[in-house]
Amino acid sequence: MTIKIAPSILSADFARLGQQVALVEKGGAEYLHIDVMDGHFVPNITIGPLVVSALRPHSKMIFDVHLMIESPDQYIPEFINAGADLVTVHQEATKHLHRTISLIKEKGVKAGVSINPATPWQTLEYVLPMVDLVLIMSVNPGFGGQKFIPSALKKISALAHYKKEHELNFEIQVDGGINRSNIAQVVQAGADVLVAGSAIFNTEDIEQEVIALRKQGELGLSGDFVN
Amino acid sequence: MTIKIAPSILSADFARLGQQVALVEKGGAEYLHIDVMDGHFVPNITIGPLVVSALRPHSKMIFDVHLMIESPDQYIPEFINAGADLVTVHQEATKHLHRTISLIKEKGVKAGVSINPATPWQTLEYVLPMVDLVLIMSVNPGFGGQKFIPSALKKISALAHYKKEHELNFEIQVDGGINRSNIAQVVQAGADVLVAGSAIFNTEDIEQEVIALRKQGELGLSGDFVN
Amino acid sequence: MTIKIAPSILSADFARLGQQVALVEKGGAEYLHIDVMDGHFVPNITIGPLVVSALRPHSKMIFDVHLMIESPDQYIPEFINAGADLVTVHQEATKHLHRTISLIKEKGVKAGVSINPATPWQTLEYVLPMVDLVLIMSVNPGFGGQKFIPSALKKISALAHYKKEHELNFEIQVDGGINRSNIAQVVQAGADVLVAGSAIFNTEDIEQEVIALRKQGELGLSGDFVN
Amino acid sequence: MTIKIAPSILSADFARLGQQVALVEKGGAEYLHIDVMDGHFVPNITIGPLVVSALRPHSKMIFDVHLMIESPDQYIPEFINAGADLVTVHQEATKHLHRTISLIKEKGVKAGVSINPATPWQTLEYVLPMVDLVLIMSVNPGFGGQKFIPSALKKISALAHYKKEHELNFEIQVDGGINRSNIAQVVQAGADVLVAGSAIFNTEDIEQEVIALRKQGELGLSGDFVN
Amino acid sequence: MTIKIAPSILSADFARLGQQVALVEKGGAEYLHIDVMDGHFVPNITIGPLVVSALRPHSKMIFDVHLMIESPDQYIPEFINAGADLVTVHQEATKHLHRTISLIKEKGVKAGVSINPATPWQTLEYVLPMVDLVLIMSVNPGFGGQKFIPSALKKISALAHYKKEHELNFEIQVDGGINRSNIAQVVQAGADVLVAGSAIFNTEDIEQEVIALRKQGELGLSGDFVN
Amino acid sequence: MTIKIAPSILSADFARLGQQVALVEKGGAEYLHIDVMDGHFVPNITIGPLVVSALRPHSKMIFDVHLMIESPDQYIPEFINAGADLVTVHQEATKHLHRTISLIKEKGVKAGVSINPATPWQTLEYVLPMVDLVLIMSVNPGFGGQKFIPSALKKISALAHYKKEHELNFEIQVDGGINRSNIAQVVQAGADVLVAGSAIFNTEDIEQEVIALRKQGELGLSGDFVN
Repeated sequence: MTIKIAPSILSADFARLGQQVALVEKGGAEYLHIDVMDGHFVPNITIGPLVVSALRPHSKMIFDVHLMIESPDQYIPEFINAGADLVTVHQEATKHLHRTISLIKEKGVKAGVSINPATPWQTLEYVLPMVDLVLIMSVNPGFGGQKFIPSALKKISALAHYKKEHELNFEIQVDGGINRSNIAQVVQAGADVLVAGSAIFNTEDIEQEVIALRKQGELGLSGDFVN
Repeated sequence: MTIKIAPSILSADFARLGQQVALVEKGGAEYLHIDVMDGHFVPNITIGPLVVSALRPHSKMIFDVHLMIESPDQYIPEFINAGADLVTVHQEATKHLHRTISLIKEKGVKAGVSINPATPWQTLEYVLPMVDLVLIMSVNPGFGGQKFIPSALKKISALAHYKKEHELNFEIQVDGGINRSNIAQVVQAGADVLVAGSAIFNTEDIEQEVIALRKQGELGLSGDFVN
Repeated sequence: MTIKIAPSILSADFARLGQQVALVEKGGAEYLHIDVMDGHFVPNITIGPLVVSALRPHSKMIFDVHLMIESPDQYIPEFINAGADLVTVHQEATKHLHRTISLIKEKGVKAGVSINPATPWQTLEYVLPMVDLVLIMSVNPGFGGQKFIPSALKKISALAHYKKEHELNFEIQVDGGINRSNIAQVVQAGADVLVAGSAIFNTEDIEQEVIALRKQGELGLSGDFVN
Repeated sequence: MTIKIAPSILSADFARLGQQVALVEKGGAEYLHIDVMDGHFVPNITIGPLVVSALRPHSKMIFDVHLMIESPDQYIPEFINAGADLVTVHQEATKHLHRTISLIKEKGVKAGVSINPATPWQTLEYVLPMVDLVLIMSVNPGFGGQKFIPSALKKISALAHYKKEHELNFEIQVDGGINRSNIAQVVQAGADVLVAGSAIFNTEDIEQEVIALRKQGELGLSGDFVN
Repeated sequence: MTIKIAPSILSADFARLGQQVALVEKGGAEYLHIDVMDGHFVPNITIGPLVVSALRPHSKMIFDVHLMIESPDQYIPEFINAGADLVTVHQEATKHLHRTISLIKEKGVKAGVSINPATPWQTLEYVLPMVDLVLIMSVNPGFGGQKFIPSALKKISALAHYKKEHELNFEIQVDGGINRSNIAQVVQAGADVLVAGSAIFNTEDIEQEVIALRKQGELGLSGDFVN
Repeated sequence: MTIKIAPSILSADFARLGQQVALVEKGGAEYLHIDVMDGHFVPNITIGPLVVSALRPHSKMIFDVHLMIESPDQYIPEFINAGADLVTVHQEATKHLHRTISLIKEKGVKAGVSINPATPWQTLEYVLPMVDLVLIMSVNPGFGGQKFIPSALKKISALAHYKKEHELNFEIQVDGGINRSNIAQVVQAGADVLVAGSAIFNTEDIEQEVIALRKQGELGLSGDFVN
């Protein structure tokens, strides 16, 4: 058993994204978490397909595109063409979640589904068997640098339990406020993929921070971690 | 009399924006044209305030933020905080255009207003005295690399005539499909600020291209240009 | 115990709807399933009240109007005036589901509620006692000719169990991808009313196909059916 | 010089559209005016692409699809695939009218633009050179059987004057409340294509009514007509 | 020739509206200007039909309901039932302005149309013959206590000229920032009905202020007023 | 153990709100329930921040502002500035419920969350620990004078049970159709704060009615009440 680290470019330096991405890749990050916001689903606008395609030649990481946008079906094909390996949509952003997830999978990439802090995981019951990843937000999406919401631990743990019980295969990803001080706890609750933004990019040695975070997170897998 | 060049970052390499911006600044560009799209007003998502603030320390150019978004009032303060020197909004994006322009000006930066190819310039009559810039779109906003729509020339020329007649002071900016072959014509019609994206960034020597474009554009100012 | 067949006009020949409707009625269909789409709730536009009222004099079947539209309250009275006997709205299409269902019932016709493939049936808990029909979508609404989504069986069966346990009286209708090969299974899971579109109208003998579908479906009621 | 008749299927019998269409074609109608409403742009839902494709094999008339819908760009390709020869969109329904018209033309069919009774024709100035038809609404779109709004005559006449002056080639179509008593006046004002719904389909002999309407309308072309 | 005063309840004391209304009526105000805002068309929520019907028994003034709301057609009947004598809608709030105005008039009350500071009066050309009042906003609608926008004078004057030239009968109403110091100028430009909010209700003697405002405004009618 | 009475101003006389509020305060009401409707989330427009601030100097009751509006985040600060002590938002009105509730609490007032009659209380699981009040609607929000929906009792009781089991501290408020004949039953089911509109304001002696309602409601707390 192991964990994966997904640096979120939301906190990277947008004047030199190529270099920033190279650093986290050297640090061993498996996923590049790309935060797409449209100013409508969330109160911020970040980046779109052009940024994804500009970064694609610079990295072999899994491009994990997190769509915090309304009408995701309209943009899914463009993000996949731009180089996404995994596209995650919000349960709250579409009235036809099964169709949206099907659309992602038909295009040949992995599909994820995300839920906001207030949304019960049970809303996902009928799509869990078809997704590759469930992203549990541990902050309200929109901005970097927010504090981890503790009730997310209960949700992660309940979902991990359901997943085991029903022998499902999706990864549990957690995003928001994760850093060295709480990552082991998040892993222990059941997270497989850990997103971290400011905890990685707002440090002096980005590459080392990826390594350090992972090491700390892996304590949550072992018996060594004391909550 | 003179012209200004406004390279549009829509066609720049998003993996190394800082470096790209430095090149056009060295080429003498006065404005950096920053294309903000939300996927709702136009069918593309590009970049938001985080990119503007990341570029701000790298350049002294006029940051000319072109908002192709719905509900611009909601985001204007953030773009100004991020470093915008001029904020341009679309006439088609707000039902309270006078309020939106007032909001920009109250925050202490310059205000522009833009119109799509199908929109008559007369819709702007009651805001022309209060704006610093009018942006006439010569392509349908949303994507780089499109072809110049010839009817824009008639619109530029009619607006330039009205401006002179009413002794108004705004600059006329034109955006879309401008390159060496047509820039003189656009200038001759009455444009003051020329936006160019792919014509600048999709070339081998970005810095030199800014210089070449300007030189070619200035022919439109003199009697030497034969249409 | 018995089942009802509801041919969906989505797959009928729109150049001669009167004749098509007569054929399924002769075949013994109890319901005429009328798929109304507005191009907003679902990505297709189909038909409106004028088509319902044009068909009304041609048939005595239960006109079962399935509203796949936003703001259903705005159109419910017109569909009832046009001849609807049963109006079904989507849980996902209204924030005031109890009001919408009450509105239908106050107008003196039967009320149904529908849920998309990803929507848990538990979202309906507080309206189940007041509806005459629950429509479980077994495809994502919008188009004819799609494939049955197997997870619908689990949902039908869970709802049928709850209905029995709470002694409720609504019919369970299922819509999407039903044909001779799977209808018995759907009935066995707990469906009372079976919608079929292309399985009926894309055949040589429409009348006979209604009969054949019913016969096949009734196997799901008996001990003779082997899943 | 001549006129064209465009029967509007909004007033036809939707239970036997194929037959109704054959009748107007026999009567010599050049266009079949197909009224598409989505319940959002206008307060009625009528028909969509499936009806267009069902009628296509039954007729050689010009299929003139009048989109009274929001977000027309999303549905234009489907209506063209279904058999539209001409697609008309509303100026009020899109913020990017030049793009919408370009999209229609790129798909290889004719493009029209329509304006509501309150909308000045001057809003179309920058698209008039690119359209094949301008549809002036002489009732508020949404329902058949309304009364002709007299101020439409002034608008038709002003547009016809502009067209002549600028040597443009679009047809002027008028829709709403046209019948034998006013058609000559509408023609005299400058209309080329006359839409008629209830005046044609709510008569005993549909075929003859097309002929009669045309004859009456042609009086507006000659000196014989006294207003 | 004379003027009318329309106190705007936006600046009245909402804890005792009945008493406030009585005061302006005693002062001779002809219209009670009732500002309805929905928080969507404008960034403020004020009052709805219940307030109108509560005030109706307290006053014989013309209840002049200014709808600053989206989808006005939906609420027009309720405001008329509540006691409105005149309903004014915004040109910017409806895509079917002719229908909206017709709806008001069919209900038997007077109809007005309003335009924001940035909107050209020419957008109203085709409805001017059917309205009873045109409301020119001299501030951006949403809040009381704003400053008069001077370019409104040019617009009032151009509209008054057009009205005279075409022998039309609507009243010209002006709303926003009117007080004793500028009312004569507004009247001189061509206004017939003067809305005033804070200038009336934020004074010690509300009744006297109505009288004083009128007196000052009438100077604009005579030759005595020097601009 | 005790109950609180929250008169709803929706049924008060809007011509003299200050006086009406004084009456219920004299009757001992603890909360003033202020119904804010925007005509979009619900089909009625009522009142906004100006009314709240006008009433604030007249009363020391808890101002309990019930936002039945879309985009509540946009107006929360204004209602708090106007004098709200408690702000309640609808689960159905925001996709970021945790953020909305956090926003209220950060501003230093109490936060409530409300659910419509059809909405299961389980949708609130992840926000229950952070709210001060849960408002269970026992009518569809929008209008005064409606009849209590009996299934609300089951929901109140289930929520009260969950609250006790998890040792949570929020108050349970119930709004809609409460009067002397059913208040004890609602209290017995688990309600702490009882909203009443027409039952209080449509009586001869408003002050006494508050007292009478409370007395009747308290029977639900004791063993004396027979359902």
